[in-house]
Amino acid sequence: MKIYLDCIPCFIRQALEAARHATDDIRIHEQAVRGAIGLAIDLDMSQSPPKIGQQMHRLIRGLTGIEDPYHKVKQQFNNAALKLYPKMRQLIIESRNPIETAVRLAIAGNIIDFGVKSQLQERELEETIEMCLSEELLNVHLDDFLAAVNEAEDILYLADNAGEIVFDRLLIEQLPVDIITVAVKGSPVINDATMEDAVLAGLPKIVEVIDNGSDTPGTILEGCSRSFRNHFEKADLVIAKGQGNYETLNNVNKNIFFLLKVKCPVISRNIGCKAGEMILQKTKAFKGAKENAGI
Amino acid sequence: MKIYLDCIPCFIRQALEAARHATDDIRIHEQAVRGAIGLAIDLDMSQSPPKIGQQMHRLIRGLTGIEDPYHKVKQQFNNAALKLYPKMRQLIIESRNPIETAVRLAIAGNIIDFGVKSQLQERELEETIEMCLSEELLNVHLDDFLAAVNEAEDILYLADNAGEIVFDRLLIEQLPVDIITVAVKGSPVINDATMEDAVLAGLPKIVEVIDNGSDTPGTILEGCSRSFRNHFEKADLVIAKGQGNYETLNNVNKNIFFLLKVKCPVISRNIGCKAGEMILQKTKAFKGAKENAGI
Repeated sequence: MKIYLDCIPCFIRQALEAARHATDDIRIHEQAVRGAIGLAIDLDMSQSPPKIGQQMHRLIRGLTGIEDPYHKVKQQFNNAALKLYPKMRQLIIESRNPIETAVRLAIAGNIIDFGVKSQLQERELEETIEMCLSEELLNVHLDDFLAAVNEAEDILYLADNAGEIVFDRLLIEQLPVDIITVAVKGSPVINDATMEDAVLAGLPKIVEVIDNGSDTPGTILEGCSRSFRNHFEKADLVIAKGQGNYETLNNVNKNIFFLLKVKCPVISRNIGCKAGEMILQKTKAFKGAKENAGI
Repeated sequence: MKIYLDCIPCFIRQALEAARHATDDIRIHEQAVRGAIGLAIDLDMSQSPPKIGQQMHRLIRGLTGIEDPYHKVKQQFNNAALKLYPKMRQLIIESRNPIETAVRLAIAGNIIDFGVKSQLQERELEETIEMCLSEELLNVHLDDFLAAVNEAEDILYLADNAGEIVFDRLLIEQLPVDIITVAVKGSPVINDATMEDAVLAGLPKIVEVIDNGSDTPGTILEGCSRSFRNHFEKADLVIAKGQGNYETLNNVNKNIFFLLKVKCPVISRNIGCKAGEMILQKTKAFKGAKENAGI
C-alpha cells in the first residue's frame, strides 16, 4: 500500500511523540518535528507508510540517542496483557467457539499500537477486549481462515506489537503449534515486539520464534534478513498482525491472512470498512490448497 | 498563546482537508500538503496558532482558486442550527436558569469547528447539545460572568463559527441586547462566521453586527480594521467565542470572557483542563467595575 497524503501529518505527530517518549528536552522535541518536516519535503509517495516510519524513527533515535524510546510502555503493556492472560485463556477454553474467541482477542490486542494510539491507557485495552468479544464480525472470514490453517504445513505468524504478543499467544495456542514459526522485529521501532517481548510472553516455550532482522514497523521483505526471507518463502500460510504488516504486504503474491483492528482513516479507506472494525482478511493473491495443486 | 509543536502536524492536516473541501483534484491536494510543509519549515514559533492558520488557509485559497472552501458546510450547519433554534429557545425560556442554559448551548455550538472537527456530522452536534446541557460545570464561572455583564455598558461579542452563530443568538437574546455589538470575520477562513452567516442567523435584527476586516481564524488586533479596533478599545466587556479567540486574546490586557468547548490537547494543556470540557473563563487581566473605578 502506498503512502496517502493523510500519512504525512501523522508521521510528524509520531516524530514528536517518539521524541517525547525519549526525552523531556523540548529543544530535541523541536528538532524532531523539524527533522520529520525535512523528511516530508522530498517524500517519495510511492513508498509504503512503514518505509517512512522506519526512516522517521531512525531519525528520532539518532537525535535523542535513545535506542528504544518506547521500552517503558512496551513493558507496561506486556505486564498488563500478562495479568489478563489467565482470565482470557479461561474464556477461550470455556467458549462455544474457542478459535473465534481467540481470533477476537488477538484482534483486540492490536489496539496496543503507539504509532496510532499514542495515549493508550490500560482501561482502553480492557474496553477494547469487551467490545471485540461482543461486536458483530463483519470483515472476519473465519471459515476461510480455519480451512487455510487446516491445509497449511508451515505457518509463519508475523507479530506486531509488545503487549499484543501475549494476545497472539492465546490464538497461537489454539492453532497447530508444531508447524508455526513466530517472527518479531529485529530491533526496536515504536512499540513493535522484539525478541525480548516474545520471551516475556512465553512464546519460545511453545513455538519457534525468529526475528526478521529489520527495524521497519511492518514487513518490507527486501529489508529483512536472508534467514527471515527464507522462512517467509517456504511458509505456505502467513498470518500477519496489525496495520503495518497490512500496509507492507497487502499486494504481495502470497497466502497471507491479515488480522488487525482498523485504527486510522487511511487503512479504513483502503480496506473499505469503518474505523474501529475487526479485520481477518486474506490477500487477493491467496490460493487454496486445491488451487496450489492445480486441481 | 504561542504555537505548540503539536500544532504543526495539525496545520498540515488542515491544509489537506481545506484542499479537499475546495476540489477533488488530488494533484492540488498534494500541492496543498507540500505548501503547508513549506510554511512549516521556517515556522516562527513565537506566533499564535491562528496566525499560521491565516497564512495556511490563504495558501490553500490561492492554490485552489476557491475563495470559500467551507461555504457548503457553513450553509449546512447554519441550516441545522436554525432548525434546532425554536426548540432550544423554548428550552432556555422554560429552564430554571435561562442564562445558564443559554451559556451551555452557546458552548455546545462551538463544536461546529471544521479546523479541529473536520468530519463533524449533524448527529454529533445534537449529541454535544445533550452533553453540554447535562454535564457538570467545572470551568464555568457563571456568577462572575453575570456580574461582568451587569456592570458592562458596552459589550463586544466575538463570534466564532457559522452554525455556532445561531447558538450565540440564543445567548445574546438573554443579555442586554441594546449594549451589544457582534463581530464576525472580514472574509472567509475555515468555517468561521462572516456577515452572510450573521444575517442568516438573524442577528442584525436584534444587535449591531460588524466585521473585523480580517481573515484570521481568531482575533489578532493588529490585523483587524481600524473600525473594529475602535469597537474593541471602547468595549468594557468582550465575550470571545471559541479556541481561535482564546489563542489570540488570552494574554491581552482587557476584560474578556472566553466561552469555548475544548477540542484539542494543546488548548486543554494551556487551560489545564480535560479535552471536551466547557469553558467560561476570564482573562488574568480582568478587572471588575470597582477595580476599574479605583475603588
